Amino acid sequence: MYEGPVQDLIDALGRLPGIGPKSAQRIAFHLLTADPADITVLQSALHRVKNDVKFCEVCGNVSEQTRCRICLDPRRDDTVICVVEEPKDISSVERTREFRGLYHVLGGAISPIDGIGPDQLRIGPLLKRVAEPGVREVILATDPNLEGEATATYLTRLMKDFPGLAVTRLASGLPVGGDLEYADEVTLGRAFSGRRAVDA
Amino acid sequence: MYEGPVQDLIDALGRLPGIGPKSAQRIAFHLLTADPADITVLQSALHRVKNDVKFCEVCGNVSEQTRCRICLDPRRDDTVICVVEEPKDISSVERTREFRGLYHVLGGAISPIDGIGPDQLRIGPLLKRVAEPGVREVILATDPNLEGEATATYLTRLMKDFPGLAVTRLASGLPVGGDLEYADEVTLGRAFSGRRAVDA
Repeated sequence: MYEGPVQDLIDALGRLPGIGPKSAQRIAFHLLTADPADITVLQSALHRVKNDVKFCEVCGNVSEQTRCRICLDPRRDDTVICVVEEPKDISSVERTREFRGLYHVLGGAISPIDGIGPDQLRIGPLLKRVAEPGVREVILATDPNLEGEATATYLTRLMKDFPGLAVTRLASGLPVGGDLEYADEVTLGRAFSGRRAVDA
Repeated sequence: MYEGPVQDLIDALGRLPGIGPKSAQRIAFHLLTADPADITVLQSALHRVKNDVKFCEVCGNVSEQTRCRICLDPRRDDTVICVVEEPKDISSVERTREFRGLYHVLGGAISPIDGIGPDQLRIGPLLKRVAEPGVREVILATDPNLEGEATATYLTRLMKDFPGLAVTRLASGLPVGGDLEYADEVTLGRAFSGRRAVDA
């Protein structure tokens, strides 16, 4: 419909999640008349995300260095590990201010339909961390949907024989079938404080 | 909330129209795990929009050359000029397939509240085109809202003494208070075929 660069930009934007053709067009024309400095900021952010982002070698969170800020923070309680599916879930939990321990990012959830089994997740490194002395609780904060529950059940079975380890799951209160990412702070905070022990 | 590049990208995306914090986060994490080639496509589209896009010297449409494809197309009817506010309105009209004439982009609408008067719009070049022999109709396709109606009224008065020129306005049928950009093809097509003469 448009010539060259404008249409290319609309197409590229339209491939992003949650952006339809009308939104893509609106953003493209916004950028067309925007301050070139705004585009430069976006370009440089894209460049750095493509080239400079690392993942924390301990927990798997996004990071600028080999270890993320949370793992490096001496004020965090290293006896509790909160297991989440994705790095973005960490920011959801952090916003509740209910949790001062460390995290472990699985990189997804067990989902046979999508061909994701336990081997595709960072479960080995998790067991290694949990086996270290001092860890007293693992909080399973996977999404409260089918895949997340299956993953939590699987992890519970793997960890049930670790001596002196409590394995907990976020309390009900989270809407079932949803995504952790979209939970509001109060609901997620309540789910944290009401977490329950899981029997395998 | 996030470290360095990821947060910068979320911030940059969140400044785009229609993208809230959650969408920005979702897109940023999508790009983080996306094929780097997808990011390259987006980067190059941004680069070209910033550097290569010109505006047609005749009609003001976005263009890769000094004249746009529509103005260069010999099959278009050069006796009819459709006046729109923005380049994106051209694609809305083109999708109706009701119009085979040429366009003129004003670059906005008269809006005293936003400090936009007739001098900020491409009205001089429009009058020059309309004064050329052969132009028999000017269709005022400004948005059917306050600013668009004011602009249409203003233009009608300017052109009422041009000999042999019909000045028309898109038919009612368009929802009042809306944007041309969001009209569906059928409604906009009907508005085109039912356009009416305007008396100043």
